[in-house]
Amino acid sequence: MGQAEKVEIFEHVLDDLPVRDEEERLNPEFIAAVEQAITDNSAERLKELAGNLHEADTGDLIEALEEEERAPFVRLLGEEFDYTALTETDEGIRLKLLEELSNEDIAEGLGELDSDDVVYILEDLDEVDQAEILGEMPYADRAQLQKALDYPEDSAGRRMQSEFIAVAPFWTVGQTIDYMREARDLPDSFYQIYVVDPAFKLLGSVHLDKILRTKRQEKVTSIMEETRQSVLATEDQEEVARRFERYNLVSAAVVDENERLVGVLTVDDIVDVIQEEAEEDLRALAGVGDEEISDSVLTIARSRLTWLVVNLGTAVLASVVIALFEDTIEAMVALAVLMPIVASMGGNAGTQTMTVAVRGLATQELGARNMMRILNREVIVSLLNGVALAVLIGLTAWLWFQSAGLGIVIAAAIIINMLFAGLSGLLIPIALDKLKVDPAIASSVFVTTVTDVVGFFAFLGIAAFWFGLPL
Amino acid sequence: MGQAEKVEIFEHVLDDLPVRDEEERLNPEFIAAVEQAITDNSAERLKELAGNLHEADTGDLIEALEEEERAPFVRLLGEEFDYTALTETDEGIRLKLLEELSNEDIAEGLGELDSDDVVYILEDLDEVDQAEILGEMPYADRAQLQKALDYPEDSAGRRMQSEFIAVAPFWTVGQTIDYMREARDLPDSFYQIYVVDPAFKLLGSVHLDKILRTKRQEKVTSIMEETRQSVLATEDQEEVARRFERYNLVSAAVVDENERLVGVLTVDDIVDVIQEEAEEDLRALAGVGDEEISDSVLTIARSRLTWLVVNLGTAVLASVVIALFEDTIEAMVALAVLMPIVASMGGNAGTQTMTVAVRGLATQELGARNMMRILNREVIVSLLNGVALAVLIGLTAWLWFQSAGLGIVIAAAIIINMLFAGLSGLLIPIALDKLKVDPAIASSVFVTTVTDVVGFFAFLGIAAFWFGLPL
Repeated sequence: MGQAEKVEIFEHVLDDLPVRDEEERLNPEFIAAVEQAITDNSAERLKELAGNLHEADTGDLIEALEEEERAPFVRLLGEEFDYTALTETDEGIRLKLLEELSNEDIAEGLGELDSDDVVYILEDLDEVDQAEILGEMPYADRAQLQKALDYPEDSAGRRMQSEFIAVAPFWTVGQTIDYMREARDLPDSFYQIYVVDPAFKLLGSVHLDKILRTKRQEKVTSIMEETRQSVLATEDQEEVARRFERYNLVSAAVVDENERLVGVLTVDDIVDVIQEEAEEDLRALAGVGDEEISDSVLTIARSRLTWLVVNLGTAVLASVVIALFEDTIEAMVALAVLMPIVASMGGNAGTQTMTVAVRGLATQELGARNMMRILNREVIVSLLNGVALAVLIGLTAWLWFQSAGLGIVIAAAIIINMLFAGLSGLLIPIALDKLKVDPAIASSVFVTTVTDVVGFFAFLGIAAFWFGLPL
Repeated sequence: MGQAEKVEIFEHVLDDLPVRDEEERLNPEFIAAVEQAITDNSAERLKELAGNLHEADTGDLIEALEEEERAPFVRLLGEEFDYTALTETDEGIRLKLLEELSNEDIAEGLGELDSDDVVYILEDLDEVDQAEILGEMPYADRAQLQKALDYPEDSAGRRMQSEFIAVAPFWTVGQTIDYMREARDLPDSFYQIYVVDPAFKLLGSVHLDKILRTKRQEKVTSIMEETRQSVLATEDQEEVARRFERYNLVSAAVVDENERLVGVLTVDDIVDVIQEEAEEDLRALAGVGDEEISDSVLTIARSRLTWLVVNLGTAVLASVVIALFEDTIEAMVALAVLMPIVASMGGNAGTQTMTVAVRGLATQELGARNMMRILNREVIVSLLNGVALAVLIGLTAWLWFQSAGLGIVIAAAIIINMLFAGLSGLLIPIALDKLKVDPAIASSVFVTTVTDVVGFFAFLGIAAFWFGLPL
């Protein structure tokens, strides 16, 4: 089918101005139209363009605007600005924008949102602003929000929604449906209702589809599932995310230390955590921490420099090893030409094993039970690939420098370094994990140190021995 | 609260034998009990232990068993074995296990499952087995499954559930509820129902909570949302996953090229895709492809060797550059000692920028709109960190070799290589993306080549020039 048709079905089209282009990026012409409306100070035109967007599109749009256009954008949209969009922007952009808006406006805007979104927006503000905004809110909301904010950062209590439906165990399906038709202050959307005892202790959950498929006179307890998968409010969100992922959950009840129902987590809040978790390992392994695309130059430079300086230690250590063999190199300069190959092959192989090990530990696929089997496997893989590369590199060195001896020396060094690469790539992450250090952050420095030091030492040492060169 | 309490609330406990330990790994004692039951050939004991597990736990349990125990485990459990568990195991383990079971048993087991799970299990089998298993199934199921299997691999059509509820636009909420109470062959759980015209063209969707909150006599169209976010059956699952993530979707309608409703995607199918996507970049950057922890030694060795051989090219190229300066090094061996520092710092900095760029491209945070800003930023970050490292390394070299000149030479080389690292780390992924090559797979070879070649060339070249050494 043609592209035109696709746009018609899938895109929110306005004024023949699609919000997103075929690659699903924001349409530059749409952004330009929004910027024009801001420049013209035309609330009417802006509401026409951006008043009816999905919060995710509004969030991306805010990010795409220039910094000085963002506050005017929010003010011009007025009541049509959905503050949920702020949960879809970078933290840096959100904080700067909130600074420019009055706390009164913010309080009013947040009043419309589900509690989890309000907490998400409030939690990064400083305490003074937080208190002022909370002070502008109705008492009931304030107490509920304060309670969520009192849970530790990144806990289930921070991410949960405090709006939910809980019914007594003696209720029927009919009573429950009637109650929902009348109830106010329900969450925007929900997938389960909960059954609690008089002390609000969680007894079980009922999926909405079950309610719809059951006769009115049935008791809710007859279709209730005992919740195996409730979540403690103080639990870390990553643990919770792993549970959602493992058990394919769409929502889960959150309980306090007395097993009382205090909130609900839904999968849309958790999807971001799941993705971040996998991405965190990638960033940690590359030494770029949690930098965001909106971070300032200085913030980024400083956070990356730390990593580079730590790695400088590794590089200097490798140089010290080379320095041990200065006389050897002076006697045979070909060694200086070839030595980076040994270190670099070891580094690459070590990174391969380490990446698999770090992810295996994170997803718990790698554990005490299969460690010996994996260790065995890594040793065999290292030896197989070591021999293959040794033949390839040995022949290259032989032909290049017309010296069979040099070929044999580099081949031996490659096999040794590949073996150390496999062992350290697996054992270093496991050891760090046992020591409760995040293997993703610290492994690569140690692994590279091993492969550099062993690589240079093995190659230059064997060469000195084989050719009887001075040390 | 104590650990014991936690286990009581959150774990599925049996015989005082929790399925998972405190770290949420499978409990070794539980696994041992299951293995004992298999050895004893005791169906009764096995059903007691594993008959009532969540499919995800059963999946992990199958992975934890020894290879030869898996088929007996399934056979002993008999009708109590939930084939959904096979969607929770590694592909390698699943295929081996299915080989050992009779196609008749498989067909019977799959008959109970939602269509998306059946397709997930069938799609990796060879065509003969696929046809035989399909042949054992009732005609209606077979036709539906065949249709899903005809969609391209990794498309929305492959992942979708063909069971859903669709009603006519003139229906009332009451009629809809009554219909659901009677309907057979509904999906295990669902979150929306759909409104279609007589030709089954999708008109909109209704969330279940909306139905429950609306009076019986209302028309479904009055609470229907026009679906902005329907998905084409032929669309790639990664694109779909990005949409789910962006718009916080819990389920989405799948339509064919004629806009007719053919299935439903739910977020639990998509969560795995989202996680895999982030993990794929990590694996691709490290050159470990999509290997699974259950893959054989030879498969793993072969796939990793490809990457190592490609990188060998890079390493040899770097050696060729060094070889250009053989005489220079012979005249001043300190250069051989220090040169890996320059290359390695460049490599680390290049990897940092490249990782941010690759993820930015994948999440579309990096695009034509902000490219110049990011390029600017990377240049400044590179220069800032380049100068900082240059001072640090320059002083080290000066003190180590008692030569201010050597300090200046290495400082200059570091600044140059850091700049090239930042530029190549950003521009190479962008260029590959434009050429429709996955930047995660190919970037690091090119970036390392740049930082190695520039690093050695700049350092040795400047040194030769500064000290007037032979080339």
